[in-house]
Amino acid sequence: MQPIGKTRWAIAEGYIPSESTGGGRALMSHETACLLNVGDADAHVSITLFFKDREPAGPYQVTVGARRTLHLRFNDIDDPEPVPRDTDYASVIESDVPVVVQHTRLDSRQSELALLTTIAYAQN
Amino acid sequence: MQPIGKTRWAIAEGYIPSESTGGGRALMSHETACLLNVGDADAHVSITLFFKDREPAGPYQVTVGARRTLHLRFNDIDDPEPVPRDTDYASVIESDVPVVVQHTRLDSRQSELALLTTIAYAQN
Amino acid sequence: MQPIGKTRWAIAEGYIPSESTGGGRALMSHETACLLNVGDADAHVSITLFFKDREPAGPYQVTVGARRTLHLRFNDIDDPEPVPRDTDYASVIESDVPVVVQHTRLDSRQSELALLTTIAYAQN
Amino acid sequence: MQPIGKTRWAIAEGYIPSESTGGGRALMSHETACLLNVGDADAHVSITLFFKDREPAGPYQVTVGARRTLHLRFNDIDDPEPVPRDTDYASVIESDVPVVVQHTRLDSRQSELALLTTIAYAQN
Repeated sequence: MQPIGKTRWAIAEGYIPSESTGGGRALMSHETACLLNVGDADAHVSITLFFKDREPAGPYQVTVGARRTLHLRFNDIDDPEPVPRDTDYASVIESDVPVVVQHTRLDSRQSELALLTTIAYAQN
Repeated sequence: MQPIGKTRWAIAEGYIPSESTGGGRALMSHETACLLNVGDADAHVSITLFFKDREPAGPYQVTVGARRTLHLRFNDIDDPEPVPRDTDYASVIESDVPVVVQHTRLDSRQSELALLTTIAYAQN
Repeated sequence: MQPIGKTRWAIAEGYIPSESTGGGRALMSHETACLLNVGDADAHVSITLFFKDREPAGPYQVTVGARRTLHLRFNDIDDPEPVPRDTDYASVIESDVPVVVQHTRLDSRQSELALLTTIAYAQN
Repeated sequence: MQPIGKTRWAIAEGYIPSESTGGGRALMSHETACLLNVGDADAHVSITLFFKDREPAGPYQVTVGARRTLHLRFNDIDDPEPVPRDTDYASVIESDVPVVVQHTRLDSRQSELALLTTIAYAQN
């Protein structure tokens, strides 16, 4: 399939609550960057995190295979350092081939979950 | 009316929970691609699904009539194969005439529903 | 202020539940097109609704004053006809000057409300 | 890092409920503009608020440092005047360098929170 997407993306919102009420991984509070690579070459992706009052963290490196999607939880990345909880952050996602990025959060701090999503901001 | 939209769209997020608490079809957990075709020619739409660790599924074929909208539930499509539950996926939606695509999910795994939506990523 | 926005917008998702549990107008289930006109000329706006299995309805006419925002509830418009409840629809919003359109729904069918929003799809 | 973003943004939706059920600042109903400045120069940002039936308020001035993100709560800004509660508004955000803007609301009027987000509308 013809590639679709761009090579630079930004998500200005980011926040991982330290609390969850949900049972198990599916309902744990999480913040996700959904990455889609429809092309025939692997996407080598580099993520940089920005904060309110310190220098950026990263880069975090992930690979999205050709013709694959990766729903990457910010909760799970920890190299070079874990993402701090209960802290405002933002992210820039850069790839060597076009990808599409969508931001989603599931918040289960209270007994009923809340969801948000948006396509990220794209620019080559 | 003059056509509005583009011919290629991507939704990087996709997930259909296998559980629902809601009563009836309206409140069953579902994932929807809302397709709008304002032009005077039918839109022949082809959907391809992408996964984390297998080759893509599809194409799924649907028609959106001239001057019509179709709110297509991924739960309902099953040719060439049903969409797996509790599984991360993403989708590319291609049309022979311009359409507008918006992604919505209703999640009723818990007793109070949660909603998310975004206009999909567009590219001709 | 310099105008910002475009003159044609589309919202592919639309659905007004007939049920609400909330008390009063603020918490009644509603579907809203938030219109922003930052320029120094009034915006004359025309809305057309699209359905699954009938011809479009409208146009519905509204004016957004210069330097004003109007958060228009689809629940409230009824000329030339009310918007049917529990029915999938979509909308196209056309203006004679640039405006910005954002789509929001508050759903209070269950005792705890759910919210969704997205900037609409824009095209001149 | 190369700058990413644009210098003019609009959010057509805005509404701060006067009520909250959540405990503490994190779960208080709030409306946020998440601003991201990845460049090496500070961003001097000017915000103007628009209403249904009065002239605009502002400008509100904030600075987003180089390589920083600021998640600005509309609840907190009060110079030249506080943002009225239970009132529809919209906002335009202008910066002297490119930034990315994402709009988020947490609504805790009822005992379980609801969330919404979207990347704002951008235009240079």
